[in-house]
Amino acid sequence: MTQTSPQRLLWRDVTVFDGLDSGAEPMAVIVEDGVIASLTPMRDFDERRADGCRDMGRGGVMTPGLVDCHTHIVFGGGRADEFEARLEGVSYEEIARRGGGILSTVNATREADEATLFAAALPRLDAMIADGATTVEIKSGYGLSVADELKMLRVARRLGEARPVRIVTTLLGAHALPPEYRDDSDAYVDLVCEEMIPAAAAEGLADAVDVFCEKIAFSVAQCERIFRAAEAHGLPIKAHAEQLSNLGGSALAARHGALSADHIEYLDQAGIDAMREAGTVAVILPGAFHTLRETQQPPIEALRRAGVPMAVATDANPGSSPLFMPSLMLNLACTLFRLTPREALAGMTAHGAAALGLGELGRLREGAPADLCVWNLDSPAELAYAVQPGRLRHRVFQGAVSHAH
Amino acid sequence: MTQTSPQRLLWRDVTVFDGLDSGAEPMAVIVEDGVIASLTPMRDFDERRADGCRDMGRGGVMTPGLVDCHTHIVFGGGRADEFEARLEGVSYEEIARRGGGILSTVNATREADEATLFAAALPRLDAMIADGATTVEIKSGYGLSVADELKMLRVARRLGEARPVRIVTTLLGAHALPPEYRDDSDAYVDLVCEEMIPAAAAEGLADAVDVFCEKIAFSVAQCERIFRAAEAHGLPIKAHAEQLSNLGGSALAARHGALSADHIEYLDQAGIDAMREAGTVAVILPGAFHTLRETQQPPIEALRRAGVPMAVATDANPGSSPLFMPSLMLNLACTLFRLTPREALAGMTAHGAAALGLGELGRLREGAPADLCVWNLDSPAELAYAVQPGRLRHRVFQGAVSHAH
Ligand SMILES: [Zn+2]
Ligand SMILES: [Zn+2]
Repeated sequence: MTQTSPQRLLWRDVTVFDGLDSGAEPMAVIVEDGVIASLTPMRDFDERRADGCRDMGRGGVMTPGLVDCHTHIVFGGGRADEFEARLEGVSYEEIARRGGGILSTVNATREADEATLFAAALPRLDAMIADGATTVEIKSGYGLSVADELKMLRVARRLGEARPVRIVTTLLGAHALPPEYRDDSDAYVDLVCEEMIPAAAAEGLADAVDVFCEKIAFSVAQCERIFRAAEAHGLPIKAHAEQLSNLGGSALAARHGALSADHIEYLDQAGIDAMREAGTVAVILPGAFHTLRETQQPPIEALRRAGVPMAVATDANPGSSPLFMPSLMLNLACTLFRLTPREALAGMTAHGAAALGLGELGRLREGAPADLCVWNLDSPAELAYAVQPGRLRHRVFQGAVSHAH
Repeated sequence: MTQTSPQRLLWRDVTVFDGLDSGAEPMAVIVEDGVIASLTPMRDFDERRADGCRDMGRGGVMTPGLVDCHTHIVFGGGRADEFEARLEGVSYEEIARRGGGILSTVNATREADEATLFAAALPRLDAMIADGATTVEIKSGYGLSVADELKMLRVARRLGEARPVRIVTTLLGAHALPPEYRDDSDAYVDLVCEEMIPAAAAEGLADAVDVFCEKIAFSVAQCERIFRAAEAHGLPIKAHAEQLSNLGGSALAARHGALSADHIEYLDQAGIDAMREAGTVAVILPGAFHTLRETQQPPIEALRRAGVPMAVATDANPGSSPLFMPSLMLNLACTLFRLTPREALAGMTAHGAAALGLGELGRLREGAPADLCVWNLDSPAELAYAVQPGRLRHRVFQGAVSHAH
């Protein structure tokens, strides 16, 4: 990966997917000073404008840089042994008895120092960058103590300093109940509200606050307390909701103006209506659906009818979605959830950015930040159709080429 | 990709998956003259043997190079438009009316010359090589005329000359009925038997002969005629069988000593017994199962009980498996078909090689050809557990490093 200094860059004859749709005619695109300076149909392009531009070649498909708006890529340890044990016939009970499941990741994350977590996360992030990601959200949620959650967020921030990628951090203290609070989940929610959120806010470590609203995690009432604490500290909110059952977490989140409700396999019409009214993005996570072999489909057609924007993300995590490949999710979203390629791609660009409250990103338009990818493809749909690493020709982050193949 | 000249190479402290199983202790591995010169537990390794070796570093997981024993990566055109149309609600009938489906690939393949087919296939092959493949089988089957089938096979051979990878070719003239024989499938089978097979054999272009035994393709009786023609020319056989229904194609193939029966979702116990007796490998293709959203699982547990070796392959093709990523199949085989990581990995190494009649490949043992991969992993199971491009540290083909990251 080489980061060259920003300059005037010119691509000719590219098919542009602008974050929402594809243009019908080939374009000339000039990037300068970190922004998209011009997007011009080839037939209108004045070749004198090429003077002083670095010629980036002809053809291919240009998209916004991919936005992976939901990941958990900072964690200690790994769960391949558990994956293997389960396939070898070891029961869930036995795996839990051996200390498996999310708490094994919590233990390993607590034991790891920042340097260890950073070194473990870096190849995961690099895989995503090489696959075209220019914005990656990273959640905490395996520390489950004030110090360990902040440690995770600090590692996430450091990852963004180490690589040409925008890292958005989310405090997910309410991911699981830590063992020391096993019998008093309300006391843990107190800790999240009264110590974790204030500390993360004070240090500027969290761009948003997330919860896991589910029977096996936190109740609607507990999530609402956390949302209020986030609001009190000026932090936007989001929710893991309606993944395994319909508790109404998405509607609650929407009523609190959430950026997104994520998973939402069990979302009902009332939840959809609340999200539409609030402008809450639906984040579709086909990787977890695949890994957990779920059968309950998210209500794609109803979301479509309601006009709720759908984002698509990896949910990259060691347990339910060990899939560190954003472009794979485009295929999974189409194949498993019947999104169209255009919807899937919008879900990893414009709507992914919206799910992070970064509406200026994920779009290709004049004046927008020049985070973009050029792919060795004939049509944008091919990106969702075929799974084939190595098709990324150029990746541009903040106007500078950070990948050229 | 740089191909350095063969020399003595030494890896220390690697966890070795030998094609069938993982060793318990870290090993030192020396490669020389294109073969694995020694595999020694670290505690027994005499450091004087390191003299004159190129130090390839420590740690990681070493596996045989991946063997993708079932692909269709030489083809003209693409089917992303059809993928998109179907997701946008266009009916199968309408797609067929527009000339979609396999015959669109046949038309595009017939229209393309060798250079065009070669240029289109090369990035697909490169993606597989960058993912760790050292042996890739390529089938014909989109030409469906003598000249066009031979053209495909010639392109496949040229791919193997252009890249450090072993290409195994399979004549699949009986893939689909070409339009000009629409009303006389027996006459097309005559063509396959009397002209295509003899011509491919005479030019040394086919390492094996394959058929698609299915109601929508060729009958058991027609497949048997083709097997006899292959036998007459000394070519081993294999079959696409029991993918959509149980016709008994696998048992037929086994009775003719087939190297493999592939897909086999509908395989019954009689078929399993025939395969066990004949030593026919079961080739599991989770990519097509995923893409076609099939629900009928191949009889994994029965195959396991019978001791029929299971190979895993991409089935990479433009219609039912546009997935050009061998390592992804390890995850799909585990998640969708409940193979263990060890079985999946054996399926893409030792058993993949057996499905091609290349028993000396796909194994790491002293004296075996040095086609191998070293991965940035702690355990072999991680390769099936996580989907994460970029973990390949070294790829060695015929004793020479062809990828170093
Ligand atoms: Zn999540
Ligand atoms: Zn096939």
